[in-house]
Amino acid sequence: MQRRQFIKGASVLMATGAIAPAVQAAVSTSSLTTNAPFTEGKYRVLALVFDDYETLDLHGPVEMLGHMPNSEIKLVAMTEIVKSYQGPRVVADCLTTETYDCDLLLIPGGIGTRSLVNDTKLRQWLVAQIARSQNVFTVCTGTALLAMTSVLNGRKATTNKMAFQWVSSLNDNVPWQAKARWVLDGKFLTSSGVSAGTDAALFWVKHLHGELEAKRIQTLTEYDWNDDPLNDPYAVG
Amino acid sequence: MQRRQFIKGASVLMATGAIAPAVQAAVSTSSLTTNAPFTEGKYRVLALVFDDYETLDLHGPVEMLGHMPNSEIKLVAMTEIVKSYQGPRVVADCLTTETYDCDLLLIPGGIGTRSLVNDTKLRQWLVAQIARSQNVFTVCTGTALLAMTSVLNGRKATTNKMAFQWVSSLNDNVPWQAKARWVLDGKFLTSSGVSAGTDAALFWVKHLHGELEAKRIQTLTEYDWNDDPLNDPYAVG
Repeated sequence: MQRRQFIKGASVLMATGAIAPAVQAAVSTSSLTTNAPFTEGKYRVLALVFDDYETLDLHGPVEMLGHMPNSEIKLVAMTEIVKSYQGPRVVADCLTTETYDCDLLLIPGGIGTRSLVNDTKLRQWLVAQIARSQNVFTVCTGTALLAMTSVLNGRKATTNKMAFQWVSSLNDNVPWQAKARWVLDGKFLTSSGVSAGTDAALFWVKHLHGELEAKRIQTLTEYDWNDDPLNDPYAVG
Repeated sequence: MQRRQFIKGASVLMATGAIAPAVQAAVSTSSLTTNAPFTEGKYRVLALVFDDYETLDLHGPVEMLGHMPNSEIKLVAMTEIVKSYQGPRVVADCLTTETYDCDLLLIPGGIGTRSLVNDTKLRQWLVAQIARSQNVFTVCTGTALLAMTSVLNGRKATTNKMAFQWVSSLNDNVPWQAKARWVLDGKFLTSSGVSAGTDAALFWVKHLHGELEAKRIQTLTEYDWNDDPLNDPYAVG
């Protein structure tokens, strides 16, 4: 039986010019399955979004990973509609009321992480979701959300260089890398600020499919790829 | 009086994993005003989105323009929910049932433009919308949508280099630039493929606010800016 639900509110044409805030729909979780958002056989990229996420942190990697053979990208969020720091809104494909099997959990950063690091419910979801994620890829201050858990303890990691002091102060048990465009340690790929995520995403393509495939996507997107993780023009210290 | 409308359909949690297609809401246009989506006094960026737009064509410029002082970015589309080629969906802030005064009309490209070049209704909207746009900025094959009108006639322009032959074949009256990361001619800023839009957006910041401001945003986003419009590594011919 087909079930229909409604995303409520948010007239996009209100004469006031006001944009309705992200709204809570009356969502039944009874229809969820463990792989809910994904098509069978795809490389499953699940990207966490939240209000005031940084646009390019998410969409740079989405661009590159989305050109990988057989990839499928879905957004997971606390609400159905999420507003980026730059304004445009995205629609979640599934909610953090559940966790999902996936191949890559992508976590962007942004000013929204400043309050989210104190969100106990999200932290609990993250720990459970990470356990069901083959790999985890953070961009920018997305790393801060991991730093609030113990998953990075003992693992080399990096983050946005302008926010380096803040993020690294959140967890003393992480050997923070002050000079790195990105770092892969175990199942965790962490990258530096904003655009570094796009470079790290192409690295991930190379890691999975080889250099030729990464170069194909680089050419397709006319991208100037910084393919050296140690070439970090924004390094601190 | 507050009016509420509903974005219908699209359960984000259907057990089938199926994502509902973009849906038409019962939208009343009576509440529209000429500046509907924007806050008074902002630098108004209106970005056209359509199904199968290319993610980074839109979100690269959104990232950079969104950090400009006083900018406001709104999405305009034919439907309330639009799906990118890479999968994630965005929410339109207003519809192409009307045109809007804006400072910058941003038009991304993507595989969706291949059919849209034959969409007479969209073409008519574009011509009317361009007349109400202080400047127009196309990325990648977004230029193809302009090429179907006469607005670029006699103006230097460029586009994605892998699609150069197709786009340039659409209009013989445009002096197409085979080697250019971006071109500004009159009110039209056209850029090369995908990532070139991000470079061109930073150029636009510089054009409006000076080099220091562009460099500030470049640093903030840890971006490797190709700031020379003649440095086109993907040039053809």
